[in-house]
Amino acid sequence: MRGMADFDTRWSIRVYYEDTDAGGVVFYANYLKFFERARTEWLRSLGIEQLELARNTGMIFIVRATALDYLSPARLDDLVVIKSRIERIGGASVDFLQEAWRDAPDGSSELLARGSIKIGCVAADTLRPGKMPAHVRDAMQSAARTAQALADATARSAAA
Amino acid sequence: MRGMADFDTRWSIRVYYEDTDAGGVVFYANYLKFFERARTEWLRSLGIEQLELARNTGMIFIVRATALDYLSPARLDDLVVIKSRIERIGGASVDFLQEAWRDAPDGSSELLARGSIKIGCVAADTLRPGKMPAHVRDAMQSAARTAQALADATARSAAA
Amino acid sequence: MRGMADFDTRWSIRVYYEDTDAGGVVFYANYLKFFERARTEWLRSLGIEQLELARNTGMIFIVRATALDYLSPARLDDLVVIKSRIERIGGASVDFLQEAWRDAPDGSSELLARGSIKIGCVAADTLRPGKMPAHVRDAMQSAARTAQALADATARSAAA
Amino acid sequence: MRGMADFDTRWSIRVYYEDTDAGGVVFYANYLKFFERARTEWLRSLGIEQLELARNTGMIFIVRATALDYLSPARLDDLVVIKSRIERIGGASVDFLQEAWRDAPDGSSELLARGSIKIGCVAADTLRPGKMPAHVRDAMQSAARTAQALADATARSAAA
Repeated sequence: MRGMADFDTRWSIRVYYEDTDAGGVVFYANYLKFFERARTEWLRSLGIEQLELARNTGMIFIVRATALDYLSPARLDDLVVIKSRIERIGGASVDFLQEAWRDAPDGSSELLARGSIKIGCVAADTLRPGKMPAHVRDAMQSAARTAQALADATARSAAA
Repeated sequence: MRGMADFDTRWSIRVYYEDTDAGGVVFYANYLKFFERARTEWLRSLGIEQLELARNTGMIFIVRATALDYLSPARLDDLVVIKSRIERIGGASVDFLQEAWRDAPDGSSELLARGSIKIGCVAADTLRPGKMPAHVRDAMQSAARTAQALADATARSAAA
Repeated sequence: MRGMADFDTRWSIRVYYEDTDAGGVVFYANYLKFFERARTEWLRSLGIEQLELARNTGMIFIVRATALDYLSPARLDDLVVIKSRIERIGGASVDFLQEAWRDAPDGSSELLARGSIKIGCVAADTLRPGKMPAHVRDAMQSAARTAQALADATARSAAA
Repeated sequence: MRGMADFDTRWSIRVYYEDTDAGGVVFYANYLKFFERARTEWLRSLGIEQLELARNTGMIFIVRATALDYLSPARLDDLVVIKSRIERIGGASVDFLQEAWRDAPDGSSELLARGSIKIGCVAADTLRPGKMPAHVRDAMQSAARTAQALADATARSAAA
């Protein structure tokens, strides 16, 4: 079993004025944008571009559900690291667990937000649910397995 | 007990290009904005303005957690009705249940998104949790009780 | 000739947290959104809905150029009035002059931002420029003429 | 004199769903965000962080005027390069010329948007104009001179 620290991928995001609100912190809805950027870049690293996917297969990903806890505020100029991992891959859907972290000057890390994001695969024209293209599903499963194997190896070597 | 159709307040929002994405529908993160507009206008109808609250009491509301299901897409030019109701009022927090609906041309209504939003009260300068100002809590509780009484009366007359 | 105070249409917009930034004021780019909402509602008042226009004629409006001065900041909870007027209508384009105003508690008004927005008509599929549908152009010209006549009458009665 | 191709700095931005609208392209107002990200990263590369600047000097930068032409649309997944250069540095203000470009698959480049952005220095608490801190002004001027010298050298070697 993997601990919370074992994530498949990391993506860094800088906080600009556009991301903040009059409370002086990142507007909470923007963590959904940050999380999506991280998922998109992870897909891109697997060779999957979403516009190309829509053109070649007629399928697009849509977000079906999001559940986030906002734990500590990010501020202007912060560098936020988004950690993402696949929790479940189905035939027409995939669930992610994602977290936003900030490195403190002393080297420690602070958890800013955490959430689960449920993604569905739908036809771009009708928005009706449909099967995820096989090469996309395979790429995701392979990446998740590799991450799992790395995490297991790390856990074993830590236990040894 | 209240049914899902019994809400304390309704607020209408028009969908503009700014709210949509390349999928041709409202970008899911924007339902968080729509829900916040509805909560803000409901507070305003109770005589509570947030900037004034911050200046007079030093306290602001922040969003602690959001859990949303996106059920059906809204599109450009749609008129979306946000229904909101208080689920729980604590000493330093308040939980809302909110829904986004669209009226169809045939008079029927379609549920677009539903979610629970947990709000906390914090000091504007330190962002530390603190007690909700009494007049704000009282106004919310009174509004929620009035809505409950109306819903009960409607249920009784429907049962009679 | 019309003075700067003579506008074809007004539309009110409330400032929410989503519109502000860590400077405590409305993020400047959002005035472009406010201006677009006002143009869209003005079009809607003339019977023109953009999604319907795209479906029926294949044409959409796009923004070709924007030039804005940000003069005074709007803040959370402010009610901002957008005044809009058509400066020029061509065969495939229309230019707007728009201003954002805020009413002060003492009854005076403050100009927050002012800008010119150049809109073009393009085919929705190719984004190639094309002629504005005749009924849209006629509705805009008629509305602009009516506003001009009203402004002239007001000017004459003020001069009498 | 420098040609339009001589820019002080480049910054790449990926287009996500959050940046697009129902027209299938980047929402025009978002170029203001892209341009600001590029200016911010250029400042950061000079050792200037905005939140730190506000804390240490009490001064912040605000945008006073923006004038943009939107020439060609960017789409989902596009990699957009923002080129920025300083046009003028005053005691309390600085003007930028910025352009958004996209590389085509054939190696050619397409200009998507171009604009001038006028920035002012103001006190963070009163928003009243004030002198730019000397070390910020010096860093900007030095960077602009270096870029100019590089451009001149390139022009000379091209002419030789």
